[in-house]
Amino acid sequence: MTQPSAPPARYDDLRALFVNCTLKPSPAPSHTQTLMEVSQAIMAAQGVRVTHVRAEDLLLAPGVYPDMTEHGAARDDWPALFEQVREADVLVLGTPIWLGERSSTCSRVIERLYAQSGDLNEHGQYAYYGKVGGVLVTGNEDGIKHVAMGVLYALQHLGYTVPPQADAGWIGEAGPGPSYGDELGDGRRAGFDNDFTQRNTTFMTWNLLHLARMLKDAGGIPAYGNQRNAWAAGRRFDHPNPEYR
Amino acid sequence: MTQPSAPPARYDDLRALFVNCTLKPSPAPSHTQTLMEVSQAIMAAQGVRVTHVRAEDLLLAPGVYPDMTEHGAARDDWPALFEQVREADVLVLGTPIWLGERSSTCSRVIERLYAQSGDLNEHGQYAYYGKVGGVLVTGNEDGIKHVAMGVLYALQHLGYTVPPQADAGWIGEAGPGPSYGDELGDGRRAGFDNDFTQRNTTFMTWNLLHLARMLKDAGGIPAYGNQRNAWAAGRRFDHPNPEYR
Amino acid sequence: MTQPSAPPARYDDLRALFVNCTLKPSPAPSHTQTLMEVSQAIMAAQGVRVTHVRAEDLLLAPGVYPDMTEHGAARDDWPALFEQVREADVLVLGTPIWLGERSSTCSRVIERLYAQSGDLNEHGQYAYYGKVGGVLVTGNEDGIKHVAMGVLYALQHLGYTVPPQADAGWIGEAGPGPSYGDELGDGRRAGFDNDFTQRNTTFMTWNLLHLARMLKDAGGIPAYGNQRNAWAAGRRFDHPNPEYR
Amino acid sequence: MTQPSAPPARYDDLRALFVNCTLKPSPAPSHTQTLMEVSQAIMAAQGVRVTHVRAEDLLLAPGVYPDMTEHGAARDDWPALFEQVREADVLVLGTPIWLGERSSTCSRVIERLYAQSGDLNEHGQYAYYGKVGGVLVTGNEDGIKHVAMGVLYALQHLGYTVPPQADAGWIGEAGPGPSYGDELGDGRRAGFDNDFTQRNTTFMTWNLLHLARMLKDAGGIPAYGNQRNAWAAGRRFDHPNPEYR
Repeated sequence: MTQPSAPPARYDDLRALFVNCTLKPSPAPSHTQTLMEVSQAIMAAQGVRVTHVRAEDLLLAPGVYPDMTEHGAARDDWPALFEQVREADVLVLGTPIWLGERSSTCSRVIERLYAQSGDLNEHGQYAYYGKVGGVLVTGNEDGIKHVAMGVLYALQHLGYTVPPQADAGWIGEAGPGPSYGDELGDGRRAGFDNDFTQRNTTFMTWNLLHLARMLKDAGGIPAYGNQRNAWAAGRRFDHPNPEYR
Repeated sequence: MTQPSAPPARYDDLRALFVNCTLKPSPAPSHTQTLMEVSQAIMAAQGVRVTHVRAEDLLLAPGVYPDMTEHGAARDDWPALFEQVREADVLVLGTPIWLGERSSTCSRVIERLYAQSGDLNEHGQYAYYGKVGGVLVTGNEDGIKHVAMGVLYALQHLGYTVPPQADAGWIGEAGPGPSYGDELGDGRRAGFDNDFTQRNTTFMTWNLLHLARMLKDAGGIPAYGNQRNAWAAGRRFDHPNPEYR
Repeated sequence: MTQPSAPPARYDDLRALFVNCTLKPSPAPSHTQTLMEVSQAIMAAQGVRVTHVRAEDLLLAPGVYPDMTEHGAARDDWPALFEQVREADVLVLGTPIWLGERSSTCSRVIERLYAQSGDLNEHGQYAYYGKVGGVLVTGNEDGIKHVAMGVLYALQHLGYTVPPQADAGWIGEAGPGPSYGDELGDGRRAGFDNDFTQRNTTFMTWNLLHLARMLKDAGGIPAYGNQRNAWAAGRRFDHPNPEYR
Repeated sequence: MTQPSAPPARYDDLRALFVNCTLKPSPAPSHTQTLMEVSQAIMAAQGVRVTHVRAEDLLLAPGVYPDMTEHGAARDDWPALFEQVREADVLVLGTPIWLGERSSTCSRVIERLYAQSGDLNEHGQYAYYGKVGGVLVTGNEDGIKHVAMGVLYALQHLGYTVPPQADAGWIGEAGPGPSYGDELGDGRRAGFDNDFTQRNTTFMTWNLLHLARMLKDAGGIPAYGNQRNAWAAGRRFDHPNPEYR
């Protein structure tokens, strides 16, 4: 069985953007951030250029256009954040769980990502092609998988590649209780010794790096059969339907 | 803008398994199958060895063990189907929508895939690592995205890689109405001329091929930071938590 | 503050059907059943006629017709189970969680309930009008709310009334671990001392009884503005759209 | 078959609050509002006091406390909106669909409703007991049921009663296309002649009225077996678990 002692590649040309969708602006402590820092540390140890942004420190206007100031908003910090999204090879969204759902802030971020889905890259593919995405979720009692379903769905639908096991998180037993990283009476901190949470966060991180490496080396997703403008121009790439021309 | 006239690679060493989770056994017509055949035809044109299985033609026993005959079931066709899953580089699940959800049969298939999640490959990774997955959904009125969320989530959680835009489907306007492929009064067939459905099915298919090619050429997902047995043996792959050893 | 010492009514004319959607046929122990028994005991103490059915002890054929033997199935136990559904004032579905979703068996039961959605009662309302529904969910780590969302949605969409807080369940901390009722090392049983689980199960049970009482005393949901045949015959009940007649 | 010519009761003592969770502040046209107005008109014709609020006309601060100005927010319009929620017997949330999900604004509203879930009424029940809730959803192609699942789940979990068929909406065929109420080339408006949408919206509206009438006449949900403070004080209401006292 292969258990290599060193990573199979270098990752120090990669950029990763971590967007924390906690409802709390800085400098309030964020349980979600505490977990995100685990993944960030692994990437940083490999030389990845990691940026962490807290969405509620910005003013992301509601709407589905790239720049809402062109549609009546007084201010919109999305265009600047989108520059960071565009430069990043890896995007990790972090979100708390409220009533079993991702935060409204996380939905806001995804709505704005979606607003750019008309953008095409130089190959006529959606702009997010060639990037990889993952999600980290924290709550006190329920909902990691449900939240991850929606976030990862959105990312892949927009063009991100989702590596194996690209979600991780922590929740406690059903009912009210401590959140990730809260100090417990005995000096331990909630979730820090949860093997499942720590292992999955680690595996997610490495799988993001592996796929990002692979895609970057390949120059993105091969441009064939997935170019929006080629399709619009009538190319069909072996699509068989005789009635559909 | 690059619009290559030919695919960037050959795919004739790949195998693809399409599992149709319609509630209807053969030979009843299946709307879902009609859409799946679009994707299958594109792959077949590239020489991919395509297998189509209808789950309700088999007896997949309820349960979460690899072989339910060892747990009291009189018969279980899952072990044979799993052999096909294991040999396939690409897995596409197709499902109808009932009351906004995937079919019970689709859930059954996913439960049985999950039953094998303890299997590890020769690198100590989950057995589904290195494979790619997608989903095709048909209904008459609502639910493609919701169904796709759950199916793609399960696939990536099990170890599949999810390429960009790995879901496609067809639904009609809200309320009762024709299903995919039903003959309409005017000789047309429902959904056959839906640009969104046909384009997304095509893009999904090619993205599955591109990622399957890439992963096969790389020998799977690099085995580092994601080996279950290495983690169990204490390796931590730059995991930073000083309290977590 | 009002804290009455006795229930405000009698409930001994009510019938409740509990359908356990575990993947395991009898007599295998079911964690879900252990929780369902809490709710059943409260109802039984009030004289409610309680029936508990394990779906996997029956053969519920796949399909969306009331009797699948008329559509090729060799056997179908649904028609008999539906008689019990029809007689019950209260329906509680219990389900385990697999990969964050309700069991395939639970989906099968809902598909068959849906198959009867064309049935109308004597007022021309959907047949499930006047009944109340709830859900109990057990798993080892995640998904009560997500599963409850789907089940309660289906029930209300079919015509059930959903009382306040009609869902309850138990899950443990993220990751593998004991299921509801499993014996822990120290003699305790998982979830038995979880205040949230036990309280919510109790509240759910009483709210089902309160609403069932209210609806039975009222002769069901008043038959006005919700009669499918009246609508089909052209009645519009103050619907305002001048273009829609 | 009973088809009464007049409503079975009067409803002019009821209040209904419709919260439109479109991403667009007034006076931008809202497709969701166009559908909500159907329900509102039916209620108004019965003398119900109807209020329509567009959430994005307000500043609802992110967070899960009743008044976020006490937690650092410069402004928070939630406390004033909550007064309207508290006075209303009926709450209808309206939301558009983005990428298959409810709007971020809708999630924000639900988070703030949740922030009040510690409030108890004079019987020691959750403050939302005795109220009824429903949801209206519009999009151009997919997601009514998925969105309704989450919204109705939240409402019942908070204490609202969900009547039969308390969701309605409109979407068009898969892919880009007109939204509800958009003018089509032929003078028609999208969805106005959709029988399913108009019927379900009507049935939802009447079922909200019927249940609101019933609950108001009963003085709310009977206060037994569901009082948070009674439970906290040790009352168990026939809960059977000998180990749980």
